[in-house]
Amino acid sequence: MVLFLGIDGGGTGCRAAIADAHGRILGEGTAGPANVNTDTEGARQNILAATNQALSGTGAAMGDLVAALGLAGANVSGVARELAAALPFARAEIVSDAITAARGALGRQDGIVAAMGTGSVFAVSRDGTLRQYGGRGFVLGDEGSGAVLGRSLLAEALRADDGFAPMTPLLQAVLEEFGGAEGVIAFATRARPVEFAAFAPRVVAQDDPAAQRLFDRAVADVSLILDVLQKGGGLPVVFLGGLASHYAARLSARWETRAPLGTGLDGAVQMARELAEGL
Amino acid sequence: MVLFLGIDGGGTGCRAAIADAHGRILGEGTAGPANVNTDTEGARQNILAATNQALSGTGAAMGDLVAALGLAGANVSGVARELAAALPFARAEIVSDAITAARGALGRQDGIVAAMGTGSVFAVSRDGTLRQYGGRGFVLGDEGSGAVLGRSLLAEALRADDGFAPMTPLLQAVLEEFGGAEGVIAFATRARPVEFAAFAPRVVAQDDPAAQRLFDRAVADVSLILDVLQKGGGLPVVFLGGLASHYAARLSARWETRAPLGTGLDGAVQMARELAEGL
Repeated sequence: MVLFLGIDGGGTGCRAAIADAHGRILGEGTAGPANVNTDTEGARQNILAATNQALSGTGAAMGDLVAALGLAGANVSGVARELAAALPFARAEIVSDAITAARGALGRQDGIVAAMGTGSVFAVSRDGTLRQYGGRGFVLGDEGSGAVLGRSLLAEALRADDGFAPMTPLLQAVLEEFGGAEGVIAFATRARPVEFAAFAPRVVAQDDPAAQRLFDRAVADVSLILDVLQKGGGLPVVFLGGLASHYAARLSARWETRAPLGTGLDGAVQMARELAEGL
Repeated sequence: MVLFLGIDGGGTGCRAAIADAHGRILGEGTAGPANVNTDTEGARQNILAATNQALSGTGAAMGDLVAALGLAGANVSGVARELAAALPFARAEIVSDAITAARGALGRQDGIVAAMGTGSVFAVSRDGTLRQYGGRGFVLGDEGSGAVLGRSLLAEALRADDGFAPMTPLLQAVLEEFGGAEGVIAFATRARPVEFAAFAPRVVAQDDPAAQRLFDRAVADVSLILDVLQKGGGLPVVFLGGLASHYAARLSARWETRAPLGTGLDGAVQMARELAEGL
């Protein structure tokens, strides 16, 4: 008996689904975070907990599973290989959660996925091969992401406070909420990306000249990346994540945009079934 | 007996100088860091240690001193007022070290100071009044600073690695030094501004197309700020800090650039003497 396990694990939680050879879902499970880079042992335990839930009632055991796991942090570190070896499955392949998200969104079709959430990451599927781009993190990359948008809003508020950029109602409101520039600086010194991302909705609302300017710049950054990834080809683009609709609205005239076919968990299950094709 | 104490205190050390009413230096001293924002009590102790050294042989006591202190972090926090009250001097005024640096660089003349080091900060002296601009820190500001230049180099290396920017010999060398993009990301996650700034010399060398592009962008950022600060006036510009010569070389055709008249410690002593004028 061989069944197929898909895992979609990120910084907030981990989901498991088990399917048969026809892709029918036989069981599902959820557990805590599975970021292989920040907590490998915690990720392993949550993966096993979610898998145990999904196994219940299937009559199968861990050793019967061919697994594909899409995990946050899997692209930044060699620990993914160690984790794969420490899992009790018949076979396990670990990829970045961006790859399983892209596979779920595109299925086997060629296309580009732009995942625009707290961070940002891109993937291209061409002739059946998926490759990840971007996703370099808040400090050096994550172009167009919520965290980067939020940071750009706070930076612009400080620039306006100095007279280096035009003051607007939104920038004035941000400064007032923090009790002035000092408060903004103090916040930025300790804030995590998700806290910067909390300001992104006020940028994408675009109801203020500063918000419009900042979102225009982010759209241009993302547009440049998509241009490079297209390589002149006319690949459809699927936007994912909390900011998906805002980017799609601005860029759908330029490229064909599509809704995702499925989730990252769907993508992981598909990849597990494909793994078995090679057995 | 009234003497005049100037203190120039930053993240790496603290210097003291005591002058008489004519500006003659009677004693000098040095001690450890004096960043009022990150360690107020440590700053107080180092200020007193440097002052004790400077007092030796003058026959004066702490209570005889009218003091002006330029301290890192003094602009970001209300603790500067607390510290001033906790010092045993006849009178003490605490300002940002950017203000004493500007006073030392310009004397009483009108002008603009652009301090381009690990961070960046600007000051304008107009009709005898000094005001600070910028200096908002690595995350949200510090335009054109060494840390921001270094970060821009690492970000560009990652973008080139993804094909989002042209690969150049410098970017290739940076990627190789870190063992690839993963190494760059791992470094950036934990690096302090001074560690990013260690890459700035390779940007300002401008012997690579990427370095030229990145420094052009930084020069444009600084130029825009100077334009705003000029307000149409023809104020002379003094560049200070490790990157001073590189910015002066690029911007001296646009504005009159000058060498600094004196140091931040000179500026603090001058400000102490001016404080007494009001007594």
